Amino acid sequence: MLNLDHIDLTISGLQAHYRNGDFTPAQLVAALNAKADSLGDNPIWITRVSEAEIAQYLAYIDSQGQADLPLYGVPFAIKDNIDLAAIPTTAACKAFEFTPDDSATVVAHLIAAGAIPMGKTNMDQFATGLVGVRSPWGACRNALNSDIISGGSSSGSAVAVALGLASFSLGTDTAGSGRVPASLNNLVGLKPSRGLLSCHGVVPACKSLDCVSIFALNVDDANQVLDVATAHDRNDPFSRKAHFANGPRYYRAESQRRKIGVPDKASLEFFGSSEAESLFNHFVANTLSIDHDVVGVDFTPFLQAAKLLYEGPWVAERYLATLPLIDANPEALLPVINTIIGGGKHPRAADAFAAQYRLQALKAAADAVLADVDAVITPTNPRAYTIAEVEADPIALNSQMGYYTNFMNLLDYAALAIPVDFFANGVGFGVTLFHHAQRDKDLLSIAAQLQNRLAIPPGSGHSPFKVQGQTTSLPPSTWVDIVVCG
Amino acid sequence: MLNLDHIDLTISGLQAHYRNGDFTPAQLVAALNAKADSLGDNPIWITRVSEAEIAQYLAYIDSQGQADLPLYGVPFAIKDNIDLAAIPTTAACKAFEFTPDDSATVVAHLIAAGAIPMGKTNMDQFATGLVGVRSPWGACRNALNSDIISGGSSSGSAVAVALGLASFSLGTDTAGSGRVPASLNNLVGLKPSRGLLSCHGVVPACKSLDCVSIFALNVDDANQVLDVATAHDRNDPFSRKAHFANGPRYYRAESQRRKIGVPDKASLEFFGSSEAESLFNHFVANTLSIDHDVVGVDFTPFLQAAKLLYEGPWVAERYLATLPLIDANPEALLPVINTIIGGGKHPRAADAFAAQYRLQALKAAADAVLADVDAVITPTNPRAYTIAEVEADPIALNSQMGYYTNFMNLLDYAALAIPVDFFANGVGFGVTLFHHAQRDKDLLSIAAQLQNRLAIPPGSGHSPFKVQGQTTSLPPSTWVDIVVCG
Repeated sequence: MLNLDHIDLTISGLQAHYRNGDFTPAQLVAALNAKADSLGDNPIWITRVSEAEIAQYLAYIDSQGQADLPLYGVPFAIKDNIDLAAIPTTAACKAFEFTPDDSATVVAHLIAAGAIPMGKTNMDQFATGLVGVRSPWGACRNALNSDIISGGSSSGSAVAVALGLASFSLGTDTAGSGRVPASLNNLVGLKPSRGLLSCHGVVPACKSLDCVSIFALNVDDANQVLDVATAHDRNDPFSRKAHFANGPRYYRAESQRRKIGVPDKASLEFFGSSEAESLFNHFVANTLSIDHDVVGVDFTPFLQAAKLLYEGPWVAERYLATLPLIDANPEALLPVINTIIGGGKHPRAADAFAAQYRLQALKAAADAVLADVDAVITPTNPRAYTIAEVEADPIALNSQMGYYTNFMNLLDYAALAIPVDFFANGVGFGVTLFHHAQRDKDLLSIAAQLQNRLAIPPGSGHSPFKVQGQTTSLPPSTWVDIVVCG
Repeated sequence: MLNLDHIDLTISGLQAHYRNGDFTPAQLVAALNAKADSLGDNPIWITRVSEAEIAQYLAYIDSQGQADLPLYGVPFAIKDNIDLAAIPTTAACKAFEFTPDDSATVVAHLIAAGAIPMGKTNMDQFATGLVGVRSPWGACRNALNSDIISGGSSSGSAVAVALGLASFSLGTDTAGSGRVPASLNNLVGLKPSRGLLSCHGVVPACKSLDCVSIFALNVDDANQVLDVATAHDRNDPFSRKAHFANGPRYYRAESQRRKIGVPDKASLEFFGSSEAESLFNHFVANTLSIDHDVVGVDFTPFLQAAKLLYEGPWVAERYLATLPLIDANPEALLPVINTIIGGGKHPRAADAFAAQYRLQALKAAADAVLADVDAVITPTNPRAYTIAEVEADPIALNSQMGYYTNFMNLLDYAALAIPVDFFANGVGFGVTLFHHAQRDKDLLSIAAQLQNRLAIPPGSGHSPFKVQGQTTSLPPSTWVDIVVCG
């Protein structure tokens, strides 16, 4: 059996291993499955893909060859609200389970590029939660300290990558589900612009806001998975084309000095964690300020928008997504999920439109803040609770975790969570960069430079730190693209 | 008193008159007011601006001079759901009346450019209707045949321009209110891209969809009013900036051959009017096809989207807009309006989101149709009813009038109605060009060529036909604008 200890699981690392003949994809898969068996007491997976089922994917990449597959033999994990053909999708609700004939569009793109699906991961039921505790399969434990929450709702997808069971994974992110677990497990979490990754074959949470998200070991990998997975999809009416300047060539390790906003002192909130406050201030003073001009920004409109997500009528979208089950058989849902989503039955259409007007006004105010900066950087989550703490106070502590994340999709922004430090208990502390939709490549470029400066080995430390900040297709920097109009 | 018979009321016509010293703005205003008095049996106006009140506007343009004011001394009318400072706004509901301190943003821009407000015009109550019959001030009669409806909801604004009481006017257009009356009164009706003209100071109908619209004697004038009125407005959260290629310089009399879509035979609907069908077919065969390549397009997704406007939960926006009046005092509304808008109280938020999903899917299908053509051209309204016919069947016949207009703002398209022919009863028959938002200038350019070919004197025939298709600031056509990216 292959020894995984000295294997570089990053995408470029694996490609080098395969080119060197260090091992084959089949050998890697066998070793990863054995490791997953050994970690069986942490409920990371809802359904693993058997080696017999994986054989078809290995046969496919064998037939295509490494040269033509950018993700040749790269193992990945899939949140269990995203379809993988012939494997059950549950959204962490047994009564909701179905087995799709086809993979979700994003999964199909990744598999076509050579990636190998390892399994479907545990999650907060119906992607409603930011803690990883709300699952009938059990609370997913943090990869760096098993007493601490993994974060959610994409809990298993984050922990699988952080523990070295996959090179990257797919989550979904409506309210922060792709960023909070990335931060707590010392990973990169990319929540792309709404619509760049197709949601066809994804169980909706709030269909108008949902995004498929990417957990990766570093920003190079997040960028490369984004490139492979991005494609306009006629099967998803919310699908949007990537803008010209948000295409594959626009990623590079940034070196330009930028103007970066951080929430002003009055808006920063750590819910009593002076440790988190110190970690954020330390990052701003000792890393961010070295390369960039940092300015305090008014964070009020973002926070006011965030409140709309659960206090406003958008919960009606979650209710719609669980029909007819929630009406016919509410006990099939966890009590906390039934309580939250059941609330979506009551608001009137007039309330929905009134809230959309309010959101539009807040977006105008928030956009005015963004007009003055190249990106805003916030803590990703304000603190790290134990599983026991969240189980004792499941709604209030969950909502604290979304303080810096809930507004993002309502305001139609792109966001990228990166790890920057560690709490004393060992779990990750991260920050999130965000700006307007279609600024994904710019955020990745700024983050590449920050990751280079920080040089933190990702996840639980099994893969080395390495960011190149370059795509193979990047043209010489002296090139300019010219658009002629008129 | 100035004789209005030989006066050219187009914007460029008036500027020439003033430069020649033919008459002064004060003389024109006096003559227009006298003419309005003489037409007092047609309820065009809800409130006229007195000559004493107009004096302030005349003093302002006097102080500025003609050279610096693009709309120097140009008289205009304002639909009575758009604020003019110190004059009541009613939205055609006495109980709703209030007197604003400030003018709506668009009105303020026009006045600053030299335009003279002549009065507030009659309308279907709360802009809910396409007939011009639904007003406590009485049914506004068509400028070309007083038995026929004027169309609505911006009835008075259209009739005022068609009868030569103003050079242009402002309407609002949520479901077709700026296009249907333009067509029936032989005028140009521009429904700009959502958000280009500020809705600050406008009584909302469906706030997420509302547009201020422009009635004009020809496309040159519509274009020039658009240029003056377009400005991003921080007071309107739905305000959007004009794109670079939709700016003032991008209007010209088009000469390029274009690919124009018309609804396929199965989708064309004239509700039994073989006359309207002949007029449309004649226009396509004898005018449109001369300069352009005409192709039939599948019109199904547009028609399906149209049905959502009144059958779906968007009526809840109208309900919101009339609160608290409609709950407290429903008899203050006309019975037909109370019936329609009162229906907006009942749908649930879940219904609203489900309808938005449906709309998103229809938009994807409709956008796919637009991807193949430079513009789509349809009849503006399928036929022309008498006032008596509409009063006998007020809901069904009203809804017929929106067959080709209701989908436009739901799908976020720009639309331009132009006159192309006449019914035997003398009222206008028009067509509408439409395409994606931010294509306003392109639609105006295509329409300028069509108007030149048709050469129909506008309105009731008081002003001559004249389209130049050029803005004074248009650069030489050999110039190109270059955007450098990366």
